[in-house]
Amino acid sequence: MGILEKTILEIRPLYEDVMKKAWHRLDNLTKPIGSLGRLEELAAQMAGITGKVYNNIHKKNIVIMCADNGVIDEGYSSNPQKITEIVTNNFTKDITGVYVLANHVNSEMTIVDIGVNAEFNNEKILNKKIVYGTKNMAKEPAMTKEEVVQAIEIGIDIVDGLASEGFDLLGTGEMGVGNTTTSAAILTVLSGLDTENTVGKGSGLTEEQYEHKKRVIRRAIEVNNPDCSDILDVMAKVGGLDIAGLCGCFLGAAKNRIPIVIDGFIASIAALCAYRLCESSRDFMIPSHLSQEPGAKYIMDELNIEPYLNLNMRLGEGSGCPLAFNIVEAALAIMNNMGTFEDASLNKDDYVDIRENDLEQ
Amino acid sequence: MGILEKTILEIRPLYEDVMKKAWHRLDNLTKPIGSLGRLEELAAQMAGITGKVYNNIHKKNIVIMCADNGVIDEGYSSNPQKITEIVTNNFTKDITGVYVLANHVNSEMTIVDIGVNAEFNNEKILNKKIVYGTKNMAKEPAMTKEEVVQAIEIGIDIVDGLASEGFDLLGTGEMGVGNTTTSAAILTVLSGLDTENTVGKGSGLTEEQYEHKKRVIRRAIEVNNPDCSDILDVMAKVGGLDIAGLCGCFLGAAKNRIPIVIDGFIASIAALCAYRLCESSRDFMIPSHLSQEPGAKYIMDELNIEPYLNLNMRLGEGSGCPLAFNIVEAALAIMNNMGTFEDASLNKDDYVDIRENDLEQ
Repeated sequence: MGILEKTILEIRPLYEDVMKKAWHRLDNLTKPIGSLGRLEELAAQMAGITGKVYNNIHKKNIVIMCADNGVIDEGYSSNPQKITEIVTNNFTKDITGVYVLANHVNSEMTIVDIGVNAEFNNEKILNKKIVYGTKNMAKEPAMTKEEVVQAIEIGIDIVDGLASEGFDLLGTGEMGVGNTTTSAAILTVLSGLDTENTVGKGSGLTEEQYEHKKRVIRRAIEVNNPDCSDILDVMAKVGGLDIAGLCGCFLGAAKNRIPIVIDGFIASIAALCAYRLCESSRDFMIPSHLSQEPGAKYIMDELNIEPYLNLNMRLGEGSGCPLAFNIVEAALAIMNNMGTFEDASLNKDDYVDIRENDLEQ
Repeated sequence: MGILEKTILEIRPLYEDVMKKAWHRLDNLTKPIGSLGRLEELAAQMAGITGKVYNNIHKKNIVIMCADNGVIDEGYSSNPQKITEIVTNNFTKDITGVYVLANHVNSEMTIVDIGVNAEFNNEKILNKKIVYGTKNMAKEPAMTKEEVVQAIEIGIDIVDGLASEGFDLLGTGEMGVGNTTTSAAILTVLSGLDTENTVGKGSGLTEEQYEHKKRVIRRAIEVNNPDCSDILDVMAKVGGLDIAGLCGCFLGAAKNRIPIVIDGFIASIAALCAYRLCESSRDFMIPSHLSQEPGAKYIMDELNIEPYLNLNMRLGEGSGCPLAFNIVEAALAIMNNMGTFEDASLNKDDYVDIRENDLEQ
């Protein structure tokens, strides 16, 4: 049995019994029941993930999968592919958005070359290159099924390593020219939606370029005819190595019972693929913001996950994760540090009645 | 001239010239223009507030105004008034939600008795008591106009003190049984909306209690006939001392050019009153989450402010402020620490085109 199959078999759902204990404590904290809303749900989720009512975050890491996509040969936009290489290198400097935000919350980053079309001479980039960019999906499958499995297993392996180093909160990021195109292609197949609803215009795409992008995606689907019930087939034919690598991260995090934050559209598609491969992997996912890509909402709805942040961000890179890390740690502070009704000289029944009936506090 | 009038005259709008410089830098950071969304807008707002492109937060403080409301004599809910006293005392312990979250982000709190119907023997509570709770607005004006001005000026004075102590990021919180009722009453008058759209059911209010609450509010408005063009008249007749005190905090923050975070429904109403008294005060306000009270959306729309967080919180106390403080500091980290296109070996025009046309990163 391969690592991927073994990983999926090892993923267990949340510990319901520990979540019950967590809710018991949350309901006895000095506040109206449920009044801290989704912070409480998050604290309970954390208990279900780790099997402990009280949790603390010791080490945070954002895994950034970088890869090139052959589909950009279609020329539907003016992207030079070299941007993938330049920005991947820049992740190792202290100048990028994700670095600054990660550093701000004391998070490390793991920068992975899983398929960039360039050689790096940079020891801060983890060399896991499978190929020098995928093939042009508008003409042939982007990858073989073996390659997609290899990419997923790299993601699993990286998370295994981070788990053994004691990282207990993960984030997901990516870099790859053309990866909103591959993401939208996967979403089109998995959702059955029309490209009108899955493909984004971006803020600068002309109507003509937008039509071209949608045509390229429809052609990629027509040429490859992926089987929507076979996630690996879809990812191989119209996906990317970054998406597959991140899909592996989500599965690896679930197996290792580590919470993992979803950043933007590309990470969301990877999360959806992981969910379709193993539904329980969803329980370990934590949202950040809602991508402005039109398909993002569909993904969140299928995952039954609602973003915490409303910031109109569209940078990707994993830049939404640090702010979500803050929210996770705030939720744990509530669970660990608030007092109970007894501490507060309050009668629980009175207080709850009152608060729920009339007060906002 | 009184302190209130003087304060309003001293409030100046954002420094547009410094904001232009801030946007110039933001547009040259190594990312597609605007791709960090509202984090960029916030960094620019901070520049407009302080007059400096680069800002750092040194000291944070959440001002919590506590007061009782005579309207609870109407008995439309089972709230014992003593809850205001108990919770106000609890703010000085390390057990409340707002304390835990404030402590988590290294923020101090200022707990103000501006009109609680109790004597405190607690040196951590600032004694600014005007009266032992307001009068029952369903029968007579809740306060005199002198009392409401006094409450606003206490808020201004407290912020003046915090400014002189070097606090450079403020939050707003409150505690007072009955204060969603007074808030909804003010909103009903100021918005011209029906009580159906301004009054919340809470999660535990029965249909009968809800109808009673709305009747009480309509009666308070009928009995007192507040002049909707005279904010002080409205606040005095159907408001509360906590709301007036927070209104003063918003005006004081604007005068002192310090950013101030709006927490829930009650703080939002106070923000709206400050805005109606002086439109420029709005420029210094920073949102946190959206209160679940039905009227909250109306207020945010009039203020043209959109909440950053989607957490379904309804605790009040100022508990939404610490998470917004995190967002402010992240925005400043972007401005202060990201590299420029030059640092990133990228051609701005290429990069921007690409990112806006096709990439999410």
